[in-house]
Amino acid sequence: MWLLNKLPRKLLKETYGFAASSEWVEHIQKSAVRISSGGSGSLVSAKGLVMTNHHVGSDMLDKLSTAEHNYLEHGFFARTLAEEIACPDIEMDILWSIEDVSARVNGAASAAKSSAEANDARRREMTKIEQEAGERTGLKCEMVTLYQGGAYHLYGYKRYTDVRLVMAPEKGIAFFGGDPDNFEFPRYDLDMCFFRIYADGKPLAAEHHLDWSADGTKANELVFVAGHPGRTERLFTVAHLEFLRDVVYPLSLRGLWRREVQLHTFSGRSEENRRIAENDLFGYQNSRKARTGIYQGLQDQRLMDGKRAAEKKLRDAVAANPEWQKQWGDAWQKIEAAEQAYATFYTRYASPGVGRVGLGTLFGVARNLVRCAEEKPKESSARLREYGDSRLPSLELGLFSPAPVHTALEIDSMASALQLLGELLGGNDPSVVKALDGLPPRLRAEQLVLGTKLADVAERRRLYEGGKAAVDACKDPLLALARLFDAENRALRKRYEDQVEAVEREAYAKIAAAQFAVLGDEIYPDATFTLRLAFGTVKGYSENGEAVAPYTDFAGLYAKSAERKNREPWELPERWVEKKAALALDTEYDFVSDCDIIGGNSGSPVVNAKGELVGLIFDGNIQSLVLDIAYEGEQARAVSVDSRAIVESLRKVYDMPGLADEITGKTGS
Amino acid sequence: MWLLNKLPRKLLKETYGFAASSEWVEHIQKSAVRISSGGSGSLVSAKGLVMTNHHVGSDMLDKLSTAEHNYLEHGFFARTLAEEIACPDIEMDILWSIEDVSARVNGAASAAKSSAEANDARRREMTKIEQEAGERTGLKCEMVTLYQGGAYHLYGYKRYTDVRLVMAPEKGIAFFGGDPDNFEFPRYDLDMCFFRIYADGKPLAAEHHLDWSADGTKANELVFVAGHPGRTERLFTVAHLEFLRDVVYPLSLRGLWRREVQLHTFSGRSEENRRIAENDLFGYQNSRKARTGIYQGLQDQRLMDGKRAAEKKLRDAVAANPEWQKQWGDAWQKIEAAEQAYATFYTRYASPGVGRVGLGTLFGVARNLVRCAEEKPKESSARLREYGDSRLPSLELGLFSPAPVHTALEIDSMASALQLLGELLGGNDPSVVKALDGLPPRLRAEQLVLGTKLADVAERRRLYEGGKAAVDACKDPLLALARLFDAENRALRKRYEDQVEAVEREAYAKIAAAQFAVLGDEIYPDATFTLRLAFGTVKGYSENGEAVAPYTDFAGLYAKSAERKNREPWELPERWVEKKAALALDTEYDFVSDCDIIGGNSGSPVVNAKGELVGLIFDGNIQSLVLDIAYEGEQARAVSVDSRAIVESLRKVYDMPGLADEITGKTGS
Repeated sequence: MWLLNKLPRKLLKETYGFAASSEWVEHIQKSAVRISSGGSGSLVSAKGLVMTNHHVGSDMLDKLSTAEHNYLEHGFFARTLAEEIACPDIEMDILWSIEDVSARVNGAASAAKSSAEANDARRREMTKIEQEAGERTGLKCEMVTLYQGGAYHLYGYKRYTDVRLVMAPEKGIAFFGGDPDNFEFPRYDLDMCFFRIYADGKPLAAEHHLDWSADGTKANELVFVAGHPGRTERLFTVAHLEFLRDVVYPLSLRGLWRREVQLHTFSGRSEENRRIAENDLFGYQNSRKARTGIYQGLQDQRLMDGKRAAEKKLRDAVAANPEWQKQWGDAWQKIEAAEQAYATFYTRYASPGVGRVGLGTLFGVARNLVRCAEEKPKESSARLREYGDSRLPSLELGLFSPAPVHTALEIDSMASALQLLGELLGGNDPSVVKALDGLPPRLRAEQLVLGTKLADVAERRRLYEGGKAAVDACKDPLLALARLFDAENRALRKRYEDQVEAVEREAYAKIAAAQFAVLGDEIYPDATFTLRLAFGTVKGYSENGEAVAPYTDFAGLYAKSAERKNREPWELPERWVEKKAALALDTEYDFVSDCDIIGGNSGSPVVNAKGELVGLIFDGNIQSLVLDIAYEGEQARAVSVDSRAIVESLRKVYDMPGLADEITGKTGS
Repeated sequence: MWLLNKLPRKLLKETYGFAASSEWVEHIQKSAVRISSGGSGSLVSAKGLVMTNHHVGSDMLDKLSTAEHNYLEHGFFARTLAEEIACPDIEMDILWSIEDVSARVNGAASAAKSSAEANDARRREMTKIEQEAGERTGLKCEMVTLYQGGAYHLYGYKRYTDVRLVMAPEKGIAFFGGDPDNFEFPRYDLDMCFFRIYADGKPLAAEHHLDWSADGTKANELVFVAGHPGRTERLFTVAHLEFLRDVVYPLSLRGLWRREVQLHTFSGRSEENRRIAENDLFGYQNSRKARTGIYQGLQDQRLMDGKRAAEKKLRDAVAANPEWQKQWGDAWQKIEAAEQAYATFYTRYASPGVGRVGLGTLFGVARNLVRCAEEKPKESSARLREYGDSRLPSLELGLFSPAPVHTALEIDSMASALQLLGELLGGNDPSVVKALDGLPPRLRAEQLVLGTKLADVAERRRLYEGGKAAVDACKDPLLALARLFDAENRALRKRYEDQVEAVEREAYAKIAAAQFAVLGDEIYPDATFTLRLAFGTVKGYSENGEAVAPYTDFAGLYAKSAERKNREPWELPERWVEKKAALALDTEYDFVSDCDIIGGNSGSPVVNAKGELVGLIFDGNIQSLVLDIAYEGEQARAVSVDSRAIVESLRKVYDMPGLADEITGKTGS
């Protein structure tokens, strides 16, 4: 997960004999795409075509679907530009510039009298830097906090919001094997999806895009993954990991289990419920499986002992140098104390409404409207970070999204959240009593969702543009609920920022400095949903003493479906049954490599040493989940769709030669 | 939920014009059957035939099934006595005698110096009473604590363990609509199952059994339900209900959600996993749905306000009488204090192993072996209650059960429990560290389950019969785990008994006395999984302003299946598709009545005023779930299979005229 401006050139050279030229790096960087729904992608043609995963595009597929046209289930196929359809609220960003501004950020805090004050000063400075750079460059500028506070970089993106859907296969093949096979290998998924970026109403004339490899990969071949890993906790101290294990994860898993069961129940009630809840359900199942894997790592004494030993070694090295000890020696205890402080209000801060968790889509709209009314009159750097001027375009994209809000699902989400509030804080808690207003959660949710006008985008716009006067005058019940939570929510957030975040930032900055001093400079920071480069080789592994081959093929797909009696989620879409004879069944389908990836990398391009596209990351195996907290190369594998399977299916199953020609740059058959 | 020795004769007479003769009551009582797997049933022929629900019999169906013969899925049909198959570990009890022994139980505690001491004395006395009565009568004698401590009755049962399976329909029709339709109405389930009790190797010549009604019921007809409601909390104080709401239910629901998701995951892995986990999964889903309904009641301020008002009225009446106030006035505060004390260790006591929750089947065996070795040398009344002499036959039935133990499921259960232990107590807790022994939960579970010999019944018998010497000498890893938890588990239990149970018993005895004094004698105690009589009428209800008719019919079954595209769980078994033409489609299928039932009543007979069988309870509607904490007659309904549908399906679908003739006492077609 290396920074593109800090690649381990020595390691690459020594281990793989590969020298990354600046041109090679720039080409990869500017071909990579960050997708606002939480995934990665890449430009794969000069006409703005973007390839990503079906499960990254599924949010749009869901929003574009209706009871009549279920694109998520049945797929979508535009064979001409005119057939491509506009997405309601997606943002695609291409990283254009990186600048280290650590000195300026930390300098702004030099006169601060406390950690909390310093944290405040840094936050304001970061908003200023983003704003100035944005005005200067015209790019979307975002500060990135690296090494949990060890460095601050400014990333400038080209930002695109006119994005259209080009092609998605049926969910039955994209997510073949469903939840049971998720994070497993061997796999047989065509987890792909194509969008097109438009600029000024025309397909983007992309400066960079990845060429398609003619031959794919071979076993043991060096490959690279350029994507946006979302979050890791590898550099966390042991005390911080124990806090994750004993406080954060038990609550997080509980929330995932409960909502998964509730959405199952909701989906069972009717075919339409099933449709509108499908994407949410997948999201919860996916997170549940990922977090279960990480939690198993946290509960593994062997792994934690390894962490303890490494930490002791670093602390001993620091302690052995009086100057180091004076500068950095207190960092670990500070973090331990911060987590202890956090534990005293963690549950409250994790509660819906009262804390940082929402109560569904419409409540999110309400909270944003109430906050915008309050924040926008302030000077940009004095606002809550997410309402700074440079962030408003993204916020508005969501706020005014024409995506449908499904009343039944919205009621279910809100009832669930209100119930959870009571579960976490107890029925006599004043905030719970106020929020429920004398009713049980479901009836209260019905009252709120059926009573609000915020499903109407015009009403949202009226309130947003009307500012504080319009919002204060509005009697909408969801605005009232957002107002009811506002003061406590801000206070909890401030408490978190002052007592936890501020201390962590300073302490981790010290630990990063200690690491650089003791271990050298070639250390990558934890993932931050920003562009990173990973590398490794195409490589099988061994499980329970048996060898797992690196590639699957189409023949395996048909065999697996038969083995599971063609039962959902192993049921093959009709097209795949009909076109079986036309397919080259020995086509490489999915493959694994030991590239270091994590959630957020979904949709990342896999490229070869020439920078050509050879695969599409879509998953990790079950052994890879622990990568969140520690790297492991023995069994952990990244799972990709093979570029050859993509072309074969476009030509033989989907009858889309135009799209196949566009990505391969060749007319084929 | 009236006691059979304390029926509200006045209410019955005045409301329904019905006079219950002693003969009528005795006949109903001795035709009712309590089933050890947690349900009710009734004798329906003079040859020991017992009718209950499919979902009550499913535990046996599961244990009798193999990968080749899946009786749970495909049904079981014995057309001769010789084809009936013996159940491994079921117990059927028929209530034969009831005696009020409150004076003796409380008398034993009269010299006690503290609540804890009194509780201890009562417990010992109860064991003595059971033992003496058992020796005197030859019945299985059990003490029943009523009104949470307001009265103590001794119940004597005829106990049968030679029970054979006679008939079960396919799960697809017994549980048509599956989890989504569970607790819903209109319903279309044939949730029935037939067993036969044998005595001395021959079908039991039953002294009493229910005659089959020739005509079933009509709307508004008076009906009775004789069954074993499991547990209610209607007489709980407000403080006690708040403790349920804020402490007990959040943890209980969390456990249900988590295990449901885990079992779903487990089931997805293979067809065989699906089979072996099916019954467990149903159990979790069923509890989850029931508890969700109860919790919604607890979170309903309107319901809680009603409870508060009723409690205030009672307390005011007590306070107005100085003698009453002196005797009973402190009861409510005592309970509040007891729950506050309980809250401080509730989570720990609810943890697997450390607390009262187990870690799967084999751990249960291990714990029993370790405990028996310790307890059996003691005098019976000095043992932990469940190891008293009169309880040992039931314990041995389970301990030496030949039912299969599925290794894969056992590992999954234990891994889940070990993980939960860490979730609840934190990874650094000494008991957690010892239990995991350096491994993550799944690997530790594999080590334990693959390492133990306790799946072998002969080994269990050797250890049980070898007593303390054999158990102490045995190095089995599961015995070691049970030993590891033993001391803390006993200490927690003692703490619960002394600080919570003892106080509750005394305080609720006072509240019961106050209720009798203020409100009169016609109050039934909360449910205790003992025989109760409920009554009401066959009656539809209104939901969201629409009328719900009291009966469904077979035509509705076929319509519903078509509406849900014949998709699981609305898929019809083949037989039902084939035999459609032969069926009278207007046969009454399922019906609702406003009888007061709760979990444990499943399988109860519904009888008419003549004492004839007209239906088979199998569920309540969603509005009935709140009955756990408060009775509500407007919408809450009990759901039954109509006796006419049972006969029609036996004759027309299952080709079992012999069984139909046996229950109806008529040769039919």
